[in-house]
Amino acid sequence: MKFPEEALPKIIEAVPNFSEGRRKEVIETIVSDVRQVEGGARVLDLSSDADHNRSVLTLAGEAEPMRRSILALFHAALSKIDLRQHQGEHPRLGAVDVVPFVPVSGVTMPECVELARSVGAELAKEFSLPVYLYEEAATAEHRRNLAEIRKGEFEGLGEKMRDPRWVPDFGPQEPHPSGGATVVGAREFLIAFNVNLGTSRVEIAEKIARAIRHSSGGLRYCKAMGVALSERGIAQVSINMTHFRKTPLHRVVEMVRSEAARYGVSVVGSEIVGLVPGDALLAAADFYLQLEDFDPSQVLENRLAKIGE
Amino acid sequence: MKFPEEALPKIIEAVPNFSEGRRKEVIETIVSDVRQVEGGARVLDLSSDADHNRSVLTLAGEAEPMRRSILALFHAALSKIDLRQHQGEHPRLGAVDVVPFVPVSGVTMPECVELARSVGAELAKEFSLPVYLYEEAATAEHRRNLAEIRKGEFEGLGEKMRDPRWVPDFGPQEPHPSGGATVVGAREFLIAFNVNLGTSRVEIAEKIARAIRHSSGGLRYCKAMGVALSERGIAQVSINMTHFRKTPLHRVVEMVRSEAARYGVSVVGSEIVGLVPGDALLAAADFYLQLEDFDPSQVLENRLAKIGE
Repeated sequence: MKFPEEALPKIIEAVPNFSEGRRKEVIETIVSDVRQVEGGARVLDLSSDADHNRSVLTLAGEAEPMRRSILALFHAALSKIDLRQHQGEHPRLGAVDVVPFVPVSGVTMPECVELARSVGAELAKEFSLPVYLYEEAATAEHRRNLAEIRKGEFEGLGEKMRDPRWVPDFGPQEPHPSGGATVVGAREFLIAFNVNLGTSRVEIAEKIARAIRHSSGGLRYCKAMGVALSERGIAQVSINMTHFRKTPLHRVVEMVRSEAARYGVSVVGSEIVGLVPGDALLAAADFYLQLEDFDPSQVLENRLAKIGE
Repeated sequence: MKFPEEALPKIIEAVPNFSEGRRKEVIETIVSDVRQVEGGARVLDLSSDADHNRSVLTLAGEAEPMRRSILALFHAALSKIDLRQHQGEHPRLGAVDVVPFVPVSGVTMPECVELARSVGAELAKEFSLPVYLYEEAATAEHRRNLAEIRKGEFEGLGEKMRDPRWVPDFGPQEPHPSGGATVVGAREFLIAFNVNLGTSRVEIAEKIARAIRHSSGGLRYCKAMGVALSERGIAQVSINMTHFRKTPLHRVVEMVRSEAARYGVSVVGSEIVGLVPGDALLAAADFYLQLEDFDPSQVLENRLAKIGE
């Protein structure tokens, strides 16, 4: 199965997280400002959490519309959110805390890295805001991991920034008074994928999770843990797929199946939580149907997208 | 797996066949006229065959753009093609021989039947052309089958039309002098799908074809035959899937696999020839990954299409 870039529509996804999950009118104002951007990206999803006091926006579009929408988001969020008044369970560094750009189709990772860097530079200039680059856009190995950048949170930011290892990539060398700092980067699409087992024994799900996940010797782009679904009386392997092109869905399912069989347990079903790129499911169909020389431009909808309006 | 109609873009496919496959400049003029229709359907594909002296155009779009493009096609083809001068291996009744409308996504079969009937009536009126309705749009059971309608071809059409069973559905009761008659209808998407076997024995492919196809007791929406791929030294079950939602790809592959195993033969691969609706492959991924409650609007590209520009 080949994925010719030019056959697919150009789609970048951005998943900005901002530090407000309680005041509905503030969330609505911010999102409404983003929706109203002329020639902007499309708003696919919004999810707010009051305990975390945090909202996650999903945007999709090409680079230039995305740039406009992200600028509008910062404009609205920095005027409405003051981190000096903010409390919540989720760690955070900024009013807009993190902005990952994700290549979805017809776009390469280097293009998303380039977008992260140019948008990061623009945000720093426009709002006098310190900006860190992370993941694929990071400028040093120790700054790839979001959790490391965020350590100390907003409250510890002033001190952290005096450490030469944590000088921001763009912008002033001190925090924005109310907005803190922001982390911009590029990463692969994350698929939340669960496999349900025909057993109530959660320890079997935990053993399988250890077998398949990268951290304990398993697949390179797979994070997993075992959980009990007590209402259904079954156990589940709960998985984050961090690079579905290199560690595909079918390989994870078949590995779970094989490990489960060792305990006489079968796979009773699986779940995709939230959004999934079409390519991830096409790759599964390609594998199981044993397709030869399949080209995604044979998919009618891709052909339509290629030919354009 | 649910397919909520409103979650998907509205796409009708039309696959008009016209009776010119040799004179390049004529084919180009006709297709160029169709491409230039303002607010028309999109031209996805053109394939011309000199032996058949026939071209097949693939169009996609909503009902009104489709209507405009089909009218433009008839306008161009009826002025450039004279069936009194036409020879070719493929049976034909008209300058534009047949126009099937196919529901691809967000559109029902009754909507395509309605489109076939209204476009058929308009063609008859606009061009004084006899029009027959076929397949799902047929007005009588004996007129469902295209081969039956076409029997006698252009040359026998004048006589055939005097038979009360073959009075056209719309238009004059005599052939158009140069354009004959046309057959308009609605049918399901046809997927050309081949399964390759790890054997050179074509008789095994033929036995499997007999097992899986409708005509000899197999799956309702499956046509199949065994063929030898002499260059590769293997045998192939060559399949037409005439209703992929009711007889899905995975069921056909698994039945071929099971029948082949009976001879100790394995499936070495499969091929999709030409276009395939994304839904057909999503359904295969859904089956093999054992997805629970999967909704196609979880596919990022579908979500984008739903939200629109």
